[in-house]
Amino acid sequence: MKEKGTFITFEGPDGAGKTTIINLVAKELEDALLTREPGGIEIAEQIRRVILDTENTAMDPRTEALLYAAARRQHLIEKVKPALTNGKVVLCDRFIDSSLAYQGYARGLGMDEVYTINQFAIEDLMPELTIYFDIEPELGMKRINKNKGREINRLDLENLDFHHKVREGYHLLIERFPNRMVRIDASGTVDEVFQKTIRIIRERLEEKRP
Amino acid sequence: MKEKGTFITFEGPDGAGKTTIINLVAKELEDALLTREPGGIEIAEQIRRVILDTENTAMDPRTEALLYAAARRQHLIEKVKPALTNGKVVLCDRFIDSSLAYQGYARGLGMDEVYTINQFAIEDLMPELTIYFDIEPELGMKRINKNKGREINRLDLENLDFHHKVREGYHLLIERFPNRMVRIDASGTVDEVFQKTIRIIRERLEEKRP
Repeated sequence: MKEKGTFITFEGPDGAGKTTIINLVAKELEDALLTREPGGIEIAEQIRRVILDTENTAMDPRTEALLYAAARRQHLIEKVKPALTNGKVVLCDRFIDSSLAYQGYARGLGMDEVYTINQFAIEDLMPELTIYFDIEPELGMKRINKNKGREINRLDLENLDFHHKVREGYHLLIERFPNRMVRIDASGTVDEVFQKTIRIIRERLEEKRP
Repeated sequence: MKEKGTFITFEGPDGAGKTTIINLVAKELEDALLTREPGGIEIAEQIRRVILDTENTAMDPRTEALLYAAARRQHLIEKVKPALTNGKVVLCDRFIDSSLAYQGYARGLGMDEVYTINQFAIEDLMPELTIYFDIEPELGMKRINKNKGREINRLDLENLDFHHKVREGYHLLIERFPNRMVRIDASGTVDEVFQKTIRIIRERLEEKRP
């Protein structure tokens, strides 16, 4: 990557505290851009609307994966790349690994195949560092329900199987990308998880100094 | 391919008489479905509207290629595949080779790379036969302008370079897919080109008879 900045992505299930931690990281770092797809980029927003349109019940999973890759490309070109060129630290909430874990692995499209279309979308703009917030699906679900003020129900239990599958997917990705991906145990307090996260990020940024 | 029907696609530049010939073929054959992307499939139409929206001047060529592949997938699953399952001959006006020749080759994204994302979109539903209507770009352009009742202008001449590139792309595809693709000289009269086309199609359909 020719860009001066540093591209960092954050992954993990809902309920891992991802968004909370990223907001703290963005406040802590100077000159950071916090974003998530489609990120206000008009073309990416239009594509996302097609994906999320509840009328589109007939959408094929491969169509959906191609649309996610298209929105990813446009967000990358219009928002992430210019910020990197300007030397910023770009913090992106979910990126390629979400597609690989959720659609490639848990939904069964195949990790390699989903990787292929994302590689076309991303070209040489892979993240330098990916923080993966790891949590037992049961604990993640408890946290989400606590926020919503309700108990775990039957639907939640069915969803648990899926979230176990997603987690397996992420663990396979860590084996595959051991340099890029760092696993952080997200079961601790917000402050514990934040301290671990910021330490890893600072180490990476230090390593890059000339 | 497990489908009972036969999937035939038609390729070539505008001005080769492609649409005229396909209409004649559709009339001649029994039980044929004539279609072209997005073909009235709602999700594919929505995607096409994003591609063609003139406000979207910032669209990256890779975003566009992914969107074409997404629309292709949905049209294939909702329209082409069911017709093939019902034993129909599906005649599709432009398909994967248009993306490979125009975006992959002439626009410079790379044929192999554009092929990769289209392979993801198409899976095992490649056409069994592709008729390529070949014509000198100068002659194709004369025909188009004759229809519009005007002379060739400076912009046309600039476009000629591009159309020569597209033609080179198609010729490379014929070398790569010699069994699937058949070149037909489209410089003759409508009746001459139609007779050649229908003969080739009938031969292929005969070969498939049990």
